[in-house]
Amino acid sequence: MKIGLDIMGGDYAPKAAVLGAIEAHKTLAADQTLVLIGDKEVALTLLKENNYSADNFEFVHTTEVIGMGEHPTKAIMQKPDSSIAVGFRMLKEGSLQAFSSAGNTGAMLVGSMFSVKTIPGVIRPAMTAIVPKLKGGLGILLDVGANADCKPDVLLQFGVLGSLLAESIYNIPNPKVALMNIGEEEEKGNLLSLATYPLMRDTKLFNFVGNVEGRDLFSDSNDVVVCDGFTGNVILKLAETFYVITLKKQFKDEFFARFNYEQYGGSPILGINAPVVVGHGISNPEAIKNMVLLSKNMIETKLIEKIKQAFQ
Amino acid sequence: MKIGLDIMGGDYAPKAAVLGAIEAHKTLAADQTLVLIGDKEVALTLLKENNYSADNFEFVHTTEVIGMGEHPTKAIMQKPDSSIAVGFRMLKEGSLQAFSSAGNTGAMLVGSMFSVKTIPGVIRPAMTAIVPKLKGGLGILLDVGANADCKPDVLLQFGVLGSLLAESIYNIPNPKVALMNIGEEEEKGNLLSLATYPLMRDTKLFNFVGNVEGRDLFSDSNDVVVCDGFTGNVILKLAETFYVITLKKQFKDEFFARFNYEQYGGSPILGINAPVVVGHGISNPEAIKNMVLLSKNMIETKLIEKIKQAFQ
Repeated sequence: MKIGLDIMGGDYAPKAAVLGAIEAHKTLAADQTLVLIGDKEVALTLLKENNYSADNFEFVHTTEVIGMGEHPTKAIMQKPDSSIAVGFRMLKEGSLQAFSSAGNTGAMLVGSMFSVKTIPGVIRPAMTAIVPKLKGGLGILLDVGANADCKPDVLLQFGVLGSLLAESIYNIPNPKVALMNIGEEEEKGNLLSLATYPLMRDTKLFNFVGNVEGRDLFSDSNDVVVCDGFTGNVILKLAETFYVITLKKQFKDEFFARFNYEQYGGSPILGINAPVVVGHGISNPEAIKNMVLLSKNMIETKLIEKIKQAFQ
Repeated sequence: MKIGLDIMGGDYAPKAAVLGAIEAHKTLAADQTLVLIGDKEVALTLLKENNYSADNFEFVHTTEVIGMGEHPTKAIMQKPDSSIAVGFRMLKEGSLQAFSSAGNTGAMLVGSMFSVKTIPGVIRPAMTAIVPKLKGGLGILLDVGANADCKPDVLLQFGVLGSLLAESIYNIPNPKVALMNIGEEEEKGNLLSLATYPLMRDTKLFNFVGNVEGRDLFSDSNDVVVCDGFTGNVILKLAETFYVITLKKQFKDEFFARFNYEQYGGSPILGINAPVVVGHGISNPEAIKNMVLLSKNMIETKLIEKIKQAFQ
């Protein structure tokens, strides 16, 4: 098993990425190889500084970097030797079984769709976020930004993707899937949620538990919350802000502590033909380590195969 | 000046409403009369129990009540002697200068649009919420649920409504109006925000400061945040949940304390021909008092006239 990591992606790359790779490597089995994609000389220097043998990794040297602010499609096209473009090429060819990066999210999405491609039957891939639950455990929110505008059949599919993620990776049996809405009743909502509700109500693809509201995000009433990527992105950034505020105000609490993205590693891009994880731009070594381990977990649990089966 | 209050609306009505009316009355000038609309006998009993003279109020006895869960349009039509229906009739006739209720929000919206009616030129009225700012002060979020689906020109108008509310009622000079979005750049967003941005950028109707994200809600970068009612409702309920969680966890903090809806009284329905405020269903006497005073403030600052002028 070869697990690819973009060491040039993220605000603190390449240092945070290489340090994270070291921590991830310590947990890997002998047949699991971490492939570091980026500036090899810089990586070797960082490994030496940290007294960690370069023999523990494979390296793929790249000469270009896609910046955090670059236009995704243009950057992927114009920088074929960027760490992200090379990572996706290797993933597509099968020389990697998973790829992750804390770099340009848009470029990761574009790379996913144009090289690895969506799974046949999946209309749009989705990005997910982890939601800590008040009474312990966690849930999943999707989409959090891959698709600003969605149609009802796309949201229905997000229910399938989120349900499989929750079950495979987070060991939640028969996940309760809910639709984010502005009222609990079936007749409440905007045009999108009104049209989506009957599709979800009648589906046998997952365990639909009805509408939830903003106030229900952290409740046990649901394990997976489905919404369009605009709403999900606003929710995610608002929730992150609350976490940041509690940190600044030094409110120590195990619930708020579970908002810390570092422990979850990143957001899988679901619905594509390979395990891909996008990390937070501000990823530190701990986050990078968990991003790598999440991508490994996606290989081991055969999540992609399960999704393919669901959409056959 | 006659200020109408529905004493039958809200989870703790009529008691919380009557107790709130007493507190509101204590702050009113001699020429400001509070008109209590609802079951007069019950009101008189409550006033007697609290040793507050009934001579301080005017009463309009009604025999019907619209429940919190009732279908708004049906309820308004089928219960012409409900406190909400009567309140709107009086407001339309001019025997009240403002009306407020902590009752059925949908019925308040329907009553607003069908009796008082929207101001000529206003496409859709909006409901607003107060947002505490991290560095002190407050901002406004709209729409928070009156319009689940919005078009770009409707959002543009919400900018006007929110700006006038911020300036008139909350004394924020030249309010900074922002568009809720999933990125700061002009080219980020869903179809709605992408189409709205150029309208706002080019308008002279208010001081547009660009896109904001979920994480910017509490920042000083903006005074008024505009979004569709679906997004706004999700934001509002999520933010309320965080407030409730900090309360439960006994995190005492002046920022979180400013989330307490009680001190703001309720949400004005903006864009209609009279001052109307809807209170939170769980309004206690303090909230009712502030709801009444907010509706009075809307009269005194001539907010409705200012909105009419803006849409001439």
